[in-house]
Amino acid sequence: LVKHDQFDRLRVVLVRTRNPLNIGAVARAMSNFGFFHLRVVNPYEAAFREARSAVGASEVLASAQEYKSVAEAVADCTLVVGTTAVGRRELQQPVKRLESAAQLIRKRLASSRIALLFGSEKIGLKNEDLSHCHWLLRIPTREEHRSVNLGQAVAICLYELAREHKPMGKAEKLQAAGEPARADELERLSTMLLNALATSGYLKTCSDASEEKVRCLVRRLNLAAADAETLLGMLRQMLWKMKP
Amino acid sequence: LVKHDQFDRLRVVLVRTRNPLNIGAVARAMSNFGFFHLRVVNPYEAAFREARSAVGASEVLASAQEYKSVAEAVADCTLVVGTTAVGRRELQQPVKRLESAAQLIRKRLASSRIALLFGSEKIGLKNEDLSHCHWLLRIPTREEHRSVNLGQAVAICLYELAREHKPMGKAEKLQAAGEPARADELERLSTMLLNALATSGYLKTCSDASEEKVRCLVRRLNLAAADAETLLGMLRQMLWKMKP
Repeated sequence: LVKHDQFDRLRVVLVRTRNPLNIGAVARAMSNFGFFHLRVVNPYEAAFREARSAVGASEVLASAQEYKSVAEAVADCTLVVGTTAVGRRELQQPVKRLESAAQLIRKRLASSRIALLFGSEKIGLKNEDLSHCHWLLRIPTREEHRSVNLGQAVAICLYELAREHKPMGKAEKLQAAGEPARADELERLSTMLLNALATSGYLKTCSDASEEKVRCLVRRLNLAAADAETLLGMLRQMLWKMKP
Repeated sequence: LVKHDQFDRLRVVLVRTRNPLNIGAVARAMSNFGFFHLRVVNPYEAAFREARSAVGASEVLASAQEYKSVAEAVADCTLVVGTTAVGRRELQQPVKRLESAAQLIRKRLASSRIALLFGSEKIGLKNEDLSHCHWLLRIPTREEHRSVNLGQAVAICLYELAREHKPMGKAEKLQAAGEPARADELERLSTMLLNALATSGYLKTCSDASEEKVRCLVRRLNLAAADAETLLGMLRQMLWKMKP
């Protein structure tokens, strides 16, 4: 995740949100991804009170600030970005896809405060709201179904901002599988398997089987060392049981 | 967006979902990003009925299929991926970050059917559910707040899958050669192996062994369908030989 003090410069601004569940969902996603500054503009009053007083309401919600207008809510920010599901209606600002929008936002967050605006559930941001924005971003949905649920839209945008571009480190990939098995371990396993197959009569009944085929099969398993050891123990026990 | 017929191979599987609003939110996100196949395993019945009959319930919801077990819900898929908020508790499977997980999934979707599992709101996927998975993915959240709302988690995962394709890193290895084995083939293999282990006395002597561990082990093998078939035959023969 990007360093926290960068995220600390983002203001998530909800404009005229009506549903308290959505305000709660937004706050939760913010906390998930490490953004703590929520601003609400003219929320449906009861909704905001209800969301704030919900059991387990987060720090994000508790410290949310309320504003009377978009202008006031974004006053201290140097970049204001609106979100839209833009259909074909004319927009005055450039619209960027979330992927590239997030790169620009991340870059600017290194040094300045940015507001990210989300409109109401029903109609989104109005033209008057949009006029406060430097540019707009849209989440890349299907053409036929552009309207994204508010809580999900915020979650997706914040995920994209927090998203890492570099591939996962080696340590993480090996976390569960462990060190890969060495060749000598695989060879021991192949030998044990061949032994068990011979004892069971499989090699005789299956004309297609050969030592090489079994060895190749074992290599294809991509075994971790620990798993190879486990399989070896299983086969040893079966072999013991099969012996007269 | 990636071509639609690839998305058509993804099955979103909800396990024991309780809240109808969440089922509805999942269906909406699926429609936003162009995924249409929803499967539900043992949903809280009333919730599922309510979600389905909601005004404006989408095509996705209307065509959702219901299953009694995870095994049945993933039977026709060749890759089963579970989602988890993994804390530090031990997991048997490798856990990949969403970014790299999505690359692997997209690649496999080009030719085979994949199941993406999401657990219940309260406890997520149980160990028994996880044992049906080849590997797990996690959404990269803050350490201190890992639990993501179900509807938001699905939206984020699908967004990432639909997101601009980036070339796959060298680190991501290709799967074993040949058509990958389907989940029901792996389940048959697991059952046969457990049978053989029980008959051999392995399960008694090795206190550490459990059904889930064996199932996870089999999933870690990344088996091609042909190899799964071969191993099944080998075990069948050994089992026959072990029987008195």
